[in-house]
Amino acid sequence: MSEQAEPKSILSINAGSSSLKIKLFDVVRNENAPTPSLILKASSNLASPPAKFTVTATGKENHNIKSQELEDVNSGVQAFNFILKHLRKDDSGFGSERVDQITHICHRVVHGGEIGDKGPLVINDRVIKEIEELITLAPLHNAPAESILKEAIKSLPKARNVAFFDSSFHTTLPDFIRTYPIDQKVAKERKLRKYGFHGLSYHWILKSEEGETSIIALHLGSGASMCAIKNGKSYDTTMGLTPLEGLPGGSRSGTVDPSLIFHYSSRPGDKDKILSSVELSHAENILNSASGFKSLVGTSDFSEILATDPPTSESDLTVKLFLDRILGFLGSYWLKLKGGTGGVDAIVFSGGIGEGSPQFRKMIIDGLEGLNGDFDKIDNERNKKESEGNEVVHSIGDGNGRIKLLVCKTDEELQMVEECLSTKALW
Amino acid sequence: MSEQAEPKSILSINAGSSSLKIKLFDVVRNENAPTPSLILKASSNLASPPAKFTVTATGKENHNIKSQELEDVNSGVQAFNFILKHLRKDDSGFGSERVDQITHICHRVVHGGEIGDKGPLVINDRVIKEIEELITLAPLHNAPAESILKEAIKSLPKARNVAFFDSSFHTTLPDFIRTYPIDQKVAKERKLRKYGFHGLSYHWILKSEEGETSIIALHLGSGASMCAIKNGKSYDTTMGLTPLEGLPGGSRSGTVDPSLIFHYSSRPGDKDKILSSVELSHAENILNSASGFKSLVGTSDFSEILATDPPTSESDLTVKLFLDRILGFLGSYWLKLKGGTGGVDAIVFSGGIGEGSPQFRKMIIDGLEGLNGDFDKIDNERNKKESEGNEVVHSIGDGNGRIKLLVCKTDEELQMVEECLSTKALW
Repeated sequence: MSEQAEPKSILSINAGSSSLKIKLFDVVRNENAPTPSLILKASSNLASPPAKFTVTATGKENHNIKSQELEDVNSGVQAFNFILKHLRKDDSGFGSERVDQITHICHRVVHGGEIGDKGPLVINDRVIKEIEELITLAPLHNAPAESILKEAIKSLPKARNVAFFDSSFHTTLPDFIRTYPIDQKVAKERKLRKYGFHGLSYHWILKSEEGETSIIALHLGSGASMCAIKNGKSYDTTMGLTPLEGLPGGSRSGTVDPSLIFHYSSRPGDKDKILSSVELSHAENILNSASGFKSLVGTSDFSEILATDPPTSESDLTVKLFLDRILGFLGSYWLKLKGGTGGVDAIVFSGGIGEGSPQFRKMIIDGLEGLNGDFDKIDNERNKKESEGNEVVHSIGDGNGRIKLLVCKTDEELQMVEECLSTKALW
Repeated sequence: MSEQAEPKSILSINAGSSSLKIKLFDVVRNENAPTPSLILKASSNLASPPAKFTVTATGKENHNIKSQELEDVNSGVQAFNFILKHLRKDDSGFGSERVDQITHICHRVVHGGEIGDKGPLVINDRVIKEIEELITLAPLHNAPAESILKEAIKSLPKARNVAFFDSSFHTTLPDFIRTYPIDQKVAKERKLRKYGFHGLSYHWILKSEEGETSIIALHLGSGASMCAIKNGKSYDTTMGLTPLEGLPGGSRSGTVDPSLIFHYSSRPGDKDKILSSVELSHAENILNSASGFKSLVGTSDFSEILATDPPTSESDLTVKLFLDRILGFLGSYWLKLKGGTGGVDAIVFSGGIGEGSPQFRKMIIDGLEGLNGDFDKIDNERNKKESEGNEVVHSIGDGNGRIKLLVCKTDEELQMVEECLSTKALW
C-alpha cells in the first residue's frame, strides 16, 4: 500500500468479549468527499457455543447467511479467520481479489491508556506493544482486539491498520473528575485514573446532534455506561480505570464497596482465610464475569429478564437494581450539567438495551419525574416504533419540551470509518 | 445492678479510629420522664502523639482540663483507662464512689452486621462474639470499640453495657439498593450487602426535624457520608459493606474502580507482579488509611486544605474533587427522593466539616443551582454564625424557600443515651 493514499475499501472490526462484528465499506465520491458505502456486514456470536455466523451482503442478497453454526470457532481470531476465508471463496459474492483490495482496517480497541489520549493511531510495533500492556486493564476486550489485530496484519499485509480507542472520547474529563484520591505518586507511575469507555458510541451520538450540545447519553448494553456531555465534550462518565466501574452489566458488578472483594471468600473474623481463598487473579474475574445480572437472576440477557412474566422476585430485583443505578447517575449528571437551569439539551438512549427496549426506556423516563425538568413527554407510540431505515436518531418525545428524548442507533464500526476518512493522518 | 432498673447515671462512649469521646450523664426527672443531664465530657485525641486529653465538667469548672498531653497513651483502651482513673481521683471533682454509681454504659459500635438490624443490644457474650467477627468489616472502628467494651465490663462490673450500632439506622434500605449484583449465594453466606453507617448521627438529625420528613443529610467529617431519608426512613446512603464506599475522606479513597487495587502495584502487562507485590492484607489498608485528602495534598485536615491561601494546585484539586463527589450524590438523591416535585424538605449539614465550615457549605449550596429547586437562599450572615448555646439545629437559609438549609450539631453520645432512656428493654 502506498503511503498517504486515500482509502478505497475499509474493513471495520469491532471485537467484543463474546462477539465479533465486521463491516466492509467501499469508499465512493459523494459531492467530491470520500464517503463510505456499506457492502457487507458479518458478525459472529461467541457467547454460547456453537458460535453463530451471520452475513448480510448489500446488493447480493443471495449470498446472505443467517445464524450458521460454527463448531470449531471459539475465539475472536478464529471467527475473524472464518469470515475472511468465507469472503475469499468465489461463491461468497466477493472472492480473494476483492478481499486483497482492502486498503484500511479499523480496529476498535477499548482501552487506550495514555496513548489513547492522542486519538486514533496508525498501528506500528510501538502501538501494538502499548495495547498489549493495557490488556490487564481491559482483559475481556483488549485481549481479543490485540489478537485479531495481529492476525489482520498477517492475513491482509497490504492494508493499513488503524486503532480507534474507546477511551479517547473522554480526554476532556476535568482533573477533579478523572483523579482517584489515592497516593498520587503511585497514580502517576501506574497511570491510575478514570479513562472511561464506549467513546466510539458517544462520539457517534454526539455527531448526530448539532453544535456544542449538552446531553446525558446512556449506552446500555450487556456492558453499560453513561456519559455527561457538556457543550460537546465528555465531562463525566460512569466507567473508570477499567470498564468495571459504574453501572452493573450482564456479568459485571459495576461499582461496589472497594473492600467487598476482600470479604468475598472469607468468614467474618477469619482474616487469613481471605488472603488464601480468593486468588487475586480470580478476583477481577469474579467481578467482571461472574457478577451482574447473571449473578442475580441466572441470565445476562436483560431483554429476557424484562420479559419474565409474571416477574420472579429475582427478575424484579434485577430490573429495579439496574434502574436505581441508572437513575442515580442521571440525577448526578443532571446536577453536574446544571440540567434544571437549562443545561441539558437531550437524554439519548443507545446500545442493545437502550435501542431495543421501549419498556425499559419508559421506566427510566418515568423515573425522571423527580427532576421536574422541561422534558418532552414520552410519546408511547413513537417509543414503541423501531427507528426507520437509515434514520440514526429517533425522537420518542412529543416535541413539547425543551429537553429532547432520543434513541440513537449507534454504529461503532461506521464511526471508525468516518473518522478514518476525515483524518488524512490515518491514510 | 438489678435487672430492668431505670438508668441513674450513664456513661456514653464513642470510640473512633483515632479519638475517644466520653460523656457522663445523670438521669433526672423532667415532667416525670427520665432525662439526661450532662455532667462531664472527656475526650482524647489519638491522631498525632502525644495523645491529648480534655475534660469539661459541668458545674465544676475548676476541675476542667484542656489539652493535657499524655505520653503513655496510644490506644483507645489506654485513653479510656486514663479517663476512668482520673475520675476516680478525689481531686477530680468526682471520686470512686461516683464512678461506681454508673448504671449503664452506651457504646457506639460502627458495624452491626446482621445483629445491628435489631437495633441497640444489651451486651452479652454472644453480642461480643458477633462484634469481634465484624472487626474485618470495620477494622478502624469495631476493633477499638470492642477493646473498650471489654475493658468497661472489667472496670465497671456493676454497670450494664449496651451496644448502639451505626448501621442500625439503615435497615430500611430497599432490597434493590442494599443488594450488590454479585453471586447471591456468596452474598448471602458472607452477608455481603450495603449496611451504611453514621446512623447515630442521622438518627439524631432526623429527630431534630418533625414528622416523617424527607431530607438529604450530609455527615461530613474526616469520614464522610450522605443519606437520603425518605419519609423518615433511610432510603439510600453512600457507605456500603464497609465505611470505605462512597465519599472520600481524610485518608479514605471512597468509591474507586473495584479493579483499581489490583493495579496499584503493578506495571501494565505484568500480571504476576500484581499478585505478589500488593499483599492483600495491605490492600484494604491502602484504601482506608493511605488515600483520601492525605494522599492528594499531604494532610487529612480539610479545614487546613480549605484555608490554604493562595490555594495550591493540590489543595484546589482536593476541594474540587470532594465537592464534585458530594454534588454527584446530591443530584442522585435529589432524583431518588423526587426532589424537584416536592420530595425533599431539607438539606442538612453535620459532622466536623459540615458543622464547622461555612465556606464549604456555601460551595455545596452554590452547586445546587443546577437543580432549580425551591430552596431557601443562603443567608451569608447566618451561615457564618455559629449555632448558639444549646441550639441543635441552625437554619442558614433566608426562610423564603420550601426546602430548608440547616446545620445540625450532631451528638452521637447523647443520641445513644436518649435511645437508652426511651427503650426499657435496654435497662
